Amino acid sequence: MGESILIKHVDLVNESFELKKDMFIGISDGKIDYISSNEPTKKYDTTKDGKNKLACPAFYNIHTHLPMVLLRGYAENYALSDWLNKRVFPFEAQLNSDDIYYGTLLAQAEMLRFGCISSTEMYFSLSRLFEATAESGLKINASNAIICFDNENFETLSEYKEYMECLSNESIKSNPRLKLDMAIHAEYTTNPKIIELASAMAKQYGMNMHIHLSETKSEHEECKRRRDGLTPAAYFEKLGAFDVPCTAAHCVYLEGEDFGILARNGVTVANNPISNLKLASGFANVEQMLKSGINVGLGTDGAASNNNLNLFEELKLYATLNKAVSGDPTLITPSQAIYAASRAGALSQGREDCGMLKVGYAADLFLIDTDKPYMHPAHDMLANLVYSAQGSDVVLTMCDGKILYENGVYKTIDVEKARYETEHRAYAIASKIGG
Amino acid sequence: MGESILIKHVDLVNESFELKKDMFIGISDGKIDYISSNEPTKKYDTTKDGKNKLACPAFYNIHTHLPMVLLRGYAENYALSDWLNKRVFPFEAQLNSDDIYYGTLLAQAEMLRFGCISSTEMYFSLSRLFEATAESGLKINASNAIICFDNENFETLSEYKEYMECLSNESIKSNPRLKLDMAIHAEYTTNPKIIELASAMAKQYGMNMHIHLSETKSEHEECKRRRDGLTPAAYFEKLGAFDVPCTAAHCVYLEGEDFGILARNGVTVANNPISNLKLASGFANVEQMLKSGINVGLGTDGAASNNNLNLFEELKLYATLNKAVSGDPTLITPSQAIYAASRAGALSQGREDCGMLKVGYAADLFLIDTDKPYMHPAHDMLANLVYSAQGSDVVLTMCDGKILYENGVYKTIDVEKARYETEHRAYAIASKIGG
Repeated sequence: MGESILIKHVDLVNESFELKKDMFIGISDGKIDYISSNEPTKKYDTTKDGKNKLACPAFYNIHTHLPMVLLRGYAENYALSDWLNKRVFPFEAQLNSDDIYYGTLLAQAEMLRFGCISSTEMYFSLSRLFEATAESGLKINASNAIICFDNENFETLSEYKEYMECLSNESIKSNPRLKLDMAIHAEYTTNPKIIELASAMAKQYGMNMHIHLSETKSEHEECKRRRDGLTPAAYFEKLGAFDVPCTAAHCVYLEGEDFGILARNGVTVANNPISNLKLASGFANVEQMLKSGINVGLGTDGAASNNNLNLFEELKLYATLNKAVSGDPTLITPSQAIYAASRAGALSQGREDCGMLKVGYAADLFLIDTDKPYMHPAHDMLANLVYSAQGSDVVLTMCDGKILYENGVYKTIDVEKARYETEHRAYAIASKIGG
Repeated sequence: MGESILIKHVDLVNESFELKKDMFIGISDGKIDYISSNEPTKKYDTTKDGKNKLACPAFYNIHTHLPMVLLRGYAENYALSDWLNKRVFPFEAQLNSDDIYYGTLLAQAEMLRFGCISSTEMYFSLSRLFEATAESGLKINASNAIICFDNENFETLSEYKEYMECLSNESIKSNPRLKLDMAIHAEYTTNPKIIELASAMAKQYGMNMHIHLSETKSEHEECKRRRDGLTPAAYFEKLGAFDVPCTAAHCVYLEGEDFGILARNGVTVANNPISNLKLASGFANVEQMLKSGINVGLGTDGAASNNNLNLFEELKLYATLNKAVSGDPTLITPSQAIYAASRAGALSQGREDCGMLKVGYAADLFLIDTDKPYMHPAHDMLANLVYSAQGSDVVLTMCDGKILYENGVYKTIDVEKARYETEHRAYAIASKIGG
């Protein structure tokens, strides 16, 4: 079951998302089995010195398209329709399943570098996404977003066939790190019949749902025009998409009853502030989401609209941007921001025993080195973590008790190869299609 | 004059803010004396391998209060008036000139770590700010912000006395890295007579001006009420504050003619997006500034409202936030963003031969290591620099041809001591006044 590890004399973010200083964290069999200010009597295989380090629950990036790292920097300074139609779609049409595999590995190396061990993923070539993740040791809730305009025969869709393959794939089913989610791309790219059938299938197989919801103003307004005045939230609720736990990405244009709809259905909002800024989508009303009791987690979106997968940047923006949007500088404390990046994400993925540092929970954590000029003074170390720290201060990232990244070394990913393959494949596509 | 240095086979951001690959940069006597794709015949004392590196003009942080690093994390989640009156002002009232000195050194270590070599500074204990900067090797435009409500006798102000001391201080006058700026804190903290006298003094001694301008809505609106309908921009223009080159910080609530006033007076706007978000001040209209021809540079503001001095974060926000504020995803290219962080700042400081990589210009530059998972693919390396890179990727920072930071080593700052002194002094003040 892997070696047991004791982290000694480390500051940590506890289960109440408060700072505790000079603690001991014991890890055995993939779980946290000890947290105390006293040294345990039990012997562990390995010890790590936690001095000048802060242990934090690992981050969950709950809206991504990992293989879009192949498009990093490929679609700059375009209006949204050109961004999608002239750059992203033509490029993605050329991707083969090996591209997906290597792109996922490169993306996951980047995630580990910045303390993140799980993503809620929406792409295609699901079996290759899972294959890469099985090897890298991260967690993933992966889905293939259904895009379907006129066809109402669900079972003839290529996405459906991919789902059925994954549902019978023993190596996926037997690996608790890998979860298969249902996904509907968005209201404007799917018809109601397919939404009903996909929702029923999710219910039948116990899958979570993942949807792009009210990302842009035009999407939101055109839905109301097309769907008898229903907002995207009301429309998806009516068709059963929220009958299973759902992650709704973006939610920039929620209005009126939408907040109540998401709250009463237990829908998690994946807040993607950088992507929303870069694509000029707008400003989500996170204040109202929180007041309504909605679970809010953080996502980077794909690398083509960010352009990295460093959730520390979303963490800081979550705690700053929403102050300005609401006009309230007391909105969102450092603890609340760290919760959004970790526990809120784990809950949205249906991983109840993940996302915080607590005995009995999965040992998903990172250590940051606080011995940096910009991390001192530390009148409030959690404020420093949210506002001053850099993702690159992460020196160790652990998932299920296994160290996947430590001091520049990726233990499970051949990052040289992932980068070489991803880069050369990306350039070959770009040179084929122009740009 | 220091050793000459040749950086070989390096990618760089050229004087047009475009990427040039595999170049040679020669540095002698503090200046760039060679840029070409061919190796020079001239011999240099030292060579640096630039492979997998990108050379960029060093950043200029044009609105800071460096010693506020002592307050990092001390004033979290307060409404603005409490932030200022309950936390910042009581703390600052306790600062002595040694606190200022050590805080400046710690702040400048952080600046160097993130590729920044100059700041436009507004604080007090000017002679200690200059002393620290003379030692650290950075550049600074430093001012002591005049705050004066009823007194109209300029020469009795403590600020005036500090200015006169600095003006006769040979070690400041003889060091071209150190520049003395005039500063007026803001419209609401000064009276018109003092503004006229300070402006006249700036003109007399050839000093630049530095002002907080229209940072908050209440400041802007109350000015109009108090000053016969004049906006802060119109008010300061009328009193002569723009008769010398001026840096106006924040400018969140510019309206109507304000843009024209700043443009025709050659006023630089210091855009501080993170500080404006964190204090819930609001969203500056950068689109209109650029359309009006205003020079816009970037600032972090003090560490109490940020909470770091990493201008890479402002760089990315400048290129993303303004897309969402304007609704135009094509606004601000990577080149324009890099220009704002470097050349625009140098120009605002009256340093005409700084802020870009050009033969004959000051050798102010940094190298970033691009050998990172998140920096590849590089369809557009300048987009990667703005959107994907981390400030911590800086491996070398040079000012006037002298390497001040390299691979974790601070060449001129005893960072251990600066941190120890700053931290212990900060905690002593906090424990004295509570908090």
